[in-house]
Amino acid sequence: MSRFRSYMQVALAEARAAAARGEVPVGAVIVAPSGRIVAQAGNRTRELTDPTAHAEMLAIRGACAALGQERLTGHDLYVTLEPCPMCAAAISAARIGRLYFGAADPKSGGVTVGARVFAHPQCHHVPEIYDGLAETESARLLRDFFAGRRGSGGQA
Amino acid sequence: MSRFRSYMQVALAEARAAAARGEVPVGAVIVAPSGRIVAQAGNRTRELTDPTAHAEMLAIRGACAALGQERLTGHDLYVTLEPCPMCAAAISAARIGRLYFGAADPKSGGVTVGARVFAHPQCHHVPEIYDGLAETESARLLRDFFAGRRGSGGQA
Repeated sequence: MSRFRSYMQVALAEARAAAARGEVPVGAVIVAPSGRIVAQAGNRTRELTDPTAHAEMLAIRGACAALGQERLTGHDLYVTLEPCPMCAAAISAARIGRLYFGAADPKSGGVTVGARVFAHPQCHHVPEIYDGLAETESARLLRDFFAGRRGSGGQA
Repeated sequence: MSRFRSYMQVALAEARAAAARGEVPVGAVIVAPSGRIVAQAGNRTRELTDPTAHAEMLAIRGACAALGQERLTGHDLYVTLEPCPMCAAAISAARIGRLYFGAADPKSGGVTVGARVFAHPQCHHVPEIYDGLAETESARLLRDFFAGRRGSGGQA
């Protein structure tokens, strides 16, 4: 298995753990230039009653806390779903080097659609972007989760 | 003094306190439908070594924690500077009712310039927006702060 795929497997495991907690299944991993995972997180908006607690945000905050630094220059972020504008802007603020994401998010994404956060001069740092990594499995987790919630009367 | 101006004075006080801590001087306040202030915060990115710790983010997270809820429907947010795309998207996710901001931010803003987060169909909630409130004082605080940092050799 390629190195990239193995990091995405960790992100997918975080997404599955999020689903098991009743959270929208998205997972993220931050990898140091050395290849070491410095933070990994799943979505916890419900558990923390915090609308900013997306997987990417928790991973960025965790990595910065662990390293005692505000910027993650040279670090890579793997996430199972296209980041929303909030997370894309946080990725820029943290100076993440490379962004790898799984499924596209035409409904709420902010990278390839909508706000396209990295495509404006007001964005002071643009990561290298690699999409479509493990996109089938990433999308299937989300589809199954929302199908299950509709089936049980939960709100999607 | 109008009610709006008095809330903005609290946000300005948070911005001044941020400057005194060596942080970029931006302050934010969240007001409940009753008129009660439920959270107020200044920028703490340096102190917390957290690139997501903008005033608006801390205020939203503080209000959600205080109220034990993920959404701030009917609540208003006052902030001294135009929100960046991260904060604008968080304002949308939190379902803030009205956004009042002071100075425009042509360099890093995400509301009236750049990503224009609220102007896309991928943005599922758009607050009412009122800009230019106390903009002279809000902008002066930022200008003085960056002038002082340049003068002392600090990075702007």
